[in-house]
Amino acid sequence: MTNPTKRILTGDRPTGPLHIGHYVGSLKNRVALQHEYESYILLADVQAMTDNFDNPAKVRDNVMEVALDYLAVGLDPQLCTFVVQSQIPEIAELTVFYLNLVTVSHLRQNPTVKTEIAQKGYGESVPAGFFVYPVSQAADITAFGAHLVPVGDDQLPMIEQTREIVRRFNHLYAPVLVEPKEMLSPVSRLPGLDGAAKMSKSLGNAIYLKDTADELRQKVMSMYTDPNHLRVEDPGQVEGNMVFTYLDAFDPDKDGVEALKEYYRRGGLGDVKLKRHLIEVLEAELGPVRARRLEFAQDMDAVRQIVREGTARGREVAAQTMKAVRDAMGLNY
Amino acid sequence: MTNPTKRILTGDRPTGPLHIGHYVGSLKNRVALQHEYESYILLADVQAMTDNFDNPAKVRDNVMEVALDYLAVGLDPQLCTFVVQSQIPEIAELTVFYLNLVTVSHLRQNPTVKTEIAQKGYGESVPAGFFVYPVSQAADITAFGAHLVPVGDDQLPMIEQTREIVRRFNHLYAPVLVEPKEMLSPVSRLPGLDGAAKMSKSLGNAIYLKDTADELRQKVMSMYTDPNHLRVEDPGQVEGNMVFTYLDAFDPDKDGVEALKEYYRRGGLGDVKLKRHLIEVLEAELGPVRARRLEFAQDMDAVRQIVREGTARGREVAAQTMKAVRDAMGLNY
Repeated sequence: MTNPTKRILTGDRPTGPLHIGHYVGSLKNRVALQHEYESYILLADVQAMTDNFDNPAKVRDNVMEVALDYLAVGLDPQLCTFVVQSQIPEIAELTVFYLNLVTVSHLRQNPTVKTEIAQKGYGESVPAGFFVYPVSQAADITAFGAHLVPVGDDQLPMIEQTREIVRRFNHLYAPVLVEPKEMLSPVSRLPGLDGAAKMSKSLGNAIYLKDTADELRQKVMSMYTDPNHLRVEDPGQVEGNMVFTYLDAFDPDKDGVEALKEYYRRGGLGDVKLKRHLIEVLEAELGPVRARRLEFAQDMDAVRQIVREGTARGREVAAQTMKAVRDAMGLNY
Repeated sequence: MTNPTKRILTGDRPTGPLHIGHYVGSLKNRVALQHEYESYILLADVQAMTDNFDNPAKVRDNVMEVALDYLAVGLDPQLCTFVVQSQIPEIAELTVFYLNLVTVSHLRQNPTVKTEIAQKGYGESVPAGFFVYPVSQAADITAFGAHLVPVGDDQLPMIEQTREIVRRFNHLYAPVLVEPKEMLSPVSRLPGLDGAAKMSKSLGNAIYLKDTADELRQKVMSMYTDPNHLRVEDPGQVEGNMVFTYLDAFDPDKDGVEALKEYYRRGGLGDVKLKRHLIEVLEAELGPVRARRLEFAQDMDAVRQIVREGTARGREVAAQTMKAVRDAMGLNY
């Protein structure tokens, strides 16, 4: 039984297939949460367009890929609602009204956006859509009346921005919007195969949920370990060794991992043997995911139907919110 | 017969009843244009909210007042389409997509917005909704596929911003948006009764279309003339004398006005006599407007029905545009 009194909103920007960083960072958590909460999961194609507006095909093509990833990891369309953002005009309407409740200087100070603008080298040439995306996220969250938003701590400024908009709106017009709370994700970010802070398609350092067993094996075999660990009998370093980082994230046998670490430090445990163990561990978890993905992929019409039905359900909720918002502002004639 | 191949978009921010400045500056022109063009007239309540978000009642209450003004001046709902902006979600959707096509620094350089931000004393605390309103105007214009937009020259940067967005969109995705052209309004701005550059409710220096004959007479009698014209027989000054400015704008007998100016300059023409003439001139034009307004106001249900029907027709056009836009970007699943 889901708890009908509490809603959560999560989602992804569909700019590529999901990888095992998404899996340990959020997807596994969502699968657990779907049994306890009324869950809305946003395929955020409109937000993805804010920095991919010159490549809409990349966004469009990945919407159904990400939906497949959702189904593959066990998100159950009977328990949670998949919603395509661009098919919910109410989110755009809320965004436009919320833009009046935030100043340009306040948006400029948003730490998350500030960092991203610097990373992307936008400077003042930042597209306005990207600059205001925290406002559009507030629209996402409030459109579905989410009480809780599972996030990593780097996303806290987004939740705070939403809370500020909600308080301002409820104070100015009428208390119709739900003020959301963050639900801090316990898992830290999984680094890339090469040890880079972030997995990304362009760096080619990610294992995707859709990867075949072969691709997974090859990627693990190419993983970054300890560059000074040249001979099997040499002592090896565990810290910064991605194979151990991944074992920490995936191997359910924690004592076994500690024993392997000790063995590796002492010398005598070869990288190949170690990597074979990681492949087994990953296969145990990702094999069934891959099998489900292949099964769902055989009937893409059914997947599209699931997404359409979820989007229709989501739209009903967003339309209720929009009606309340319109009534609160008196913009109903 | 309207020309079905050419559409125009005009409109007003419903923040107060319309005055005779609107009448000579745009309304009379629209009445003439409705016979030649497919005319969409936007009751821009969403845009009015960008700087009245803390007073939504002011906006809401004036939507039907402005609709009454439209009917009173002779805008014919058989010939043109009245559309309430907030009831067209497609405008918000287009706004959100267009925001990706404009940079923050480019918006910052918009001369019209720059001036308005300075006038309102916003500085960096400008609400984001106000800051981006040229983008929302581009959505207004393109939603209805307008070919022409009647504007004063102070609004040219808005049309140019729209044209830039249209070109960018058509180049990036597919050529589905109409690139509009300005239709420069021939009439210059009518100053306030007190000679101030702008008529406004807060300055109390405007004659409204809804004013009674008595109110009109009193307002003309209080008009600013020549402060040095103390006795009837004294020579008077015509330049900066609002009575003559208004006669220039309203009196169809141009030779008569020239004769009056000469007489006034010479001395012997009293302010009271002159103002009585202006009252007659204004009454000849505004009397029938007032009578029609009173007639329409007796059946507000019918007025609301006219607005609802226009809005529904407008929504069909906007929905067609939005479908083309969605197809062009491929955001259709």
